[in-house]
Amino acid sequence: MPKFMDIHHDMQGLTADQLNAAHQADLAIQSEEGVTFEHAWADTESGDVFCLSDAPSAGAVQRIHERAGHRADEIHPLTLSV
Amino acid sequence: MPKFMDIHHDMQGLTADQLNAAHQADLAIQSEEGVTFEHAWADTESGDVFCLSDAPSAGAVQRIHERAGHRADEIHPLTLSV
Repeated sequence: MPKFMDIHHDMQGLTADQLNAAHQADLAIQSEEGVTFEHAWADTESGDVFCLSDAPSAGAVQRIHERAGHRADEIHPLTLSV
Repeated sequence: MPKFMDIHHDMQGLTADQLNAAHQADLAIQSEEGVTFEHAWADTESGDVFCLSDAPSAGAVQRIHERAGHRADEIHPLTLSV
């Protein structure tokens, strides 16, 4: 299964509770698109949030994020991994 | 130990061998700054490379990357993680 790194910008000041709630909202529906979100990390000063997933396509990642209420600004297929 | 996500831009066409060699160059000297690089992932079409590390500071991450010959363009302290 391909891996993806997606990025959400402009999330300055995000709290731990907000990140957890957003991640849980993804987890609750991810299986409907065959996506597995592995981790989410936030730089709360720059406002960048990074999500690592296994997914069949970038579109599948975006559909889950959109339905959970937080569309990604970038979705990168991770063609190499080490 | 804080976590960091650093990003290298403009690495379009990077090969698996090149990513492995760059990562090994970091691993060979990382202990001198107390850094542990956990993973590196590349989107070879956009040219973005993402490195996840545990490190005492962003400066420590950058010093290892610079000495290994590949300065990071962005270094994000990951203040939240899930």
